[in-house]
Amino acid sequence: MKKLINKPEDVTTEALRGVAAAHSSLVVDVDNKIISRAGGARKGKVGLVSGGGSGHEPLHGGFVGYGMLDAACPGEVFTSPVPDQMLAATKLVDGGAGVLHIVKNYTGDVLNFQMAAELAADDDIEVTPVVVNDDVAVQDSLYTAGRRGTGATVFVEKIAGALAEQDKELKKVADVAREVNERSRSFGVALTACTTPGSGQPGFELPDDEIELGVGIHGEPGRERGKHRTAAKIVDFSLDAIHSDMPLSGDLAVLVNGMGGTPLIELYVVFNEVNRVVKGLGARITRSLVGNYITALDMTGVSITVVRLTPDLTKLWDAPVETPALRWGR
Amino acid sequence: MKKLINKPEDVTTEALRGVAAAHSSLVVDVDNKIISRAGGARKGKVGLVSGGGSGHEPLHGGFVGYGMLDAACPGEVFTSPVPDQMLAATKLVDGGAGVLHIVKNYTGDVLNFQMAAELAADDDIEVTPVVVNDDVAVQDSLYTAGRRGTGATVFVEKIAGALAEQDKELKKVADVAREVNERSRSFGVALTACTTPGSGQPGFELPDDEIELGVGIHGEPGRERGKHRTAAKIVDFSLDAIHSDMPLSGDLAVLVNGMGGTPLIELYVVFNEVNRVVKGLGARITRSLVGNYITALDMTGVSITVVRLTPDLTKLWDAPVETPALRWGR
Repeated sequence: MKKLINKPEDVTTEALRGVAAAHSSLVVDVDNKIISRAGGARKGKVGLVSGGGSGHEPLHGGFVGYGMLDAACPGEVFTSPVPDQMLAATKLVDGGAGVLHIVKNYTGDVLNFQMAAELAADDDIEVTPVVVNDDVAVQDSLYTAGRRGTGATVFVEKIAGALAEQDKELKKVADVAREVNERSRSFGVALTACTTPGSGQPGFELPDDEIELGVGIHGEPGRERGKHRTAAKIVDFSLDAIHSDMPLSGDLAVLVNGMGGTPLIELYVVFNEVNRVVKGLGARITRSLVGNYITALDMTGVSITVVRLTPDLTKLWDAPVETPALRWGR
Repeated sequence: MKKLINKPEDVTTEALRGVAAAHSSLVVDVDNKIISRAGGARKGKVGLVSGGGSGHEPLHGGFVGYGMLDAACPGEVFTSPVPDQMLAATKLVDGGAGVLHIVKNYTGDVLNFQMAAELAADDDIEVTPVVVNDDVAVQDSLYTAGRRGTGATVFVEKIAGALAEQDKELKKVADVAREVNERSRSFGVALTACTTPGSGQPGFELPDDEIELGVGIHGEPGRERGKHRTAAKIVDFSLDAIHSDMPLSGDLAVLVNGMGGTPLIELYVVFNEVNRVVKGLGARITRSLVGNYITALDMTGVSITVVRLTPDLTKLWDAPVETPALRWGR
């Protein structure tokens, strides 16, 4: 498996140096692996910290900036960041109004963020965690007790970030972040496996004519493996899984997310099918994202995230944002 | 080769329907394959039209919107759009101030845009073509007399679009578009070949331990094929090709562009290496883009585009833009 890297063990560090060189709006502490806003903490504003294993870019570092995260803690590839790293980020973004931890539901992430929150409490920083668990594919998984956190993270970070920018209090920001998670569902499908730089080999075997329905963002097994099929049938299967868990109605935000190796033209073919199904259910897509937002290295495939919007959530989604990966309206 | 599609022959049409469903800021004429701004032509503003084969998304449809293109004409996958399509787009965006055709230097594109311009002249629409030919890899190529047009297209479209938004006259917009092209150079490297939906087979053979240095965006052969190597050596080779053609100095805009199948984390590793080389030459990266902007379906690899900025070009690059793929400052 060919990769554009130097040594496998240097990938995350060198990528962070690249982020620093590319985005003057960010400060990158390469040694401690913390990406934060160049401006630093703002007094009275709730700080937003997220993090998780690397290999899912632009998540989370690409979402640091005005109107979204204050800091992101990338771990090694597919490996949780460590409590000290999260604690340092928490202190960095604390403006006296407390800090929200946005945590994807993977056991390592949850435990480490919990430990960081306890350490922060010792320093008199109030931390509230919000756990994202939108993936309907499986109840428990390789790295997870309960549902995995995937695409909803983008919406939780964006909407909570917009509220924090308005100087809302920590409880309110956390409540709305949880509301977004509760109104979101995701389902992912892999056409091919992903290969970590360290291993150089695909993380699992997927025959040439099969796909993994309900795959996780590290290549964890999904609901079932089946024969490859049309985009229409893949979307039917995915939205069926979502709709039977959370009936789709009203105004929806839809993310059609590439897993890292999927051409954009295919994502638009998928979006067209999602639109067909949503219309058939009498619902309506009013906000959309199409592209690579939460990836699994070079995996080909797609995940679909649906958020049942409210007028308030729509307004917060539309609020100005200025990050490397999401930017509008400012 | 597994793809997220229905029938191969329907990919471009269905992707266009997806674009229409995802982006309310665009109007998509699916039958005639024209993507244009929802607002229509503005009187007194030079209209900007580009186009080319599909499979390079987000180019060009993803760059239609305020501050950039007025319309894009996608052809079938890796196939030039047709003159009638370009003519219809030209008429659609004509606000009485003439129309700029931004044409990547591929023989089919050039001939068809030329024919469209002649047909438009019959309708008393003044058209000026600007041909983009920034790829230093090879002098002539599979589909090209002269150099191929690649990543500079993004900069030409953005900067010309900003000028047109200021109601500058056609000659001025064309002159600056040519200036951007003249100050830009690109070089691409493939780790793996791409597969069109129609063929289902990789467009060329590339052994597991080899890469194509100087590859084109359709998988056309480059300067040489060689053993796979580190990101540092790939960047050294690429920037050496660029620097010996156009010495790098002063302030630079750099695009580190994924070919469609490359993880973002690898593109940041590459960006870090580009920054190293640029600094070593005494130049400076002041504007940057990292991601998939001009792709070759599912090809893995990278292209690097460098633009020697001037203060005026920087200002035009920074001007507000609101398209699906490039959006800021409005």
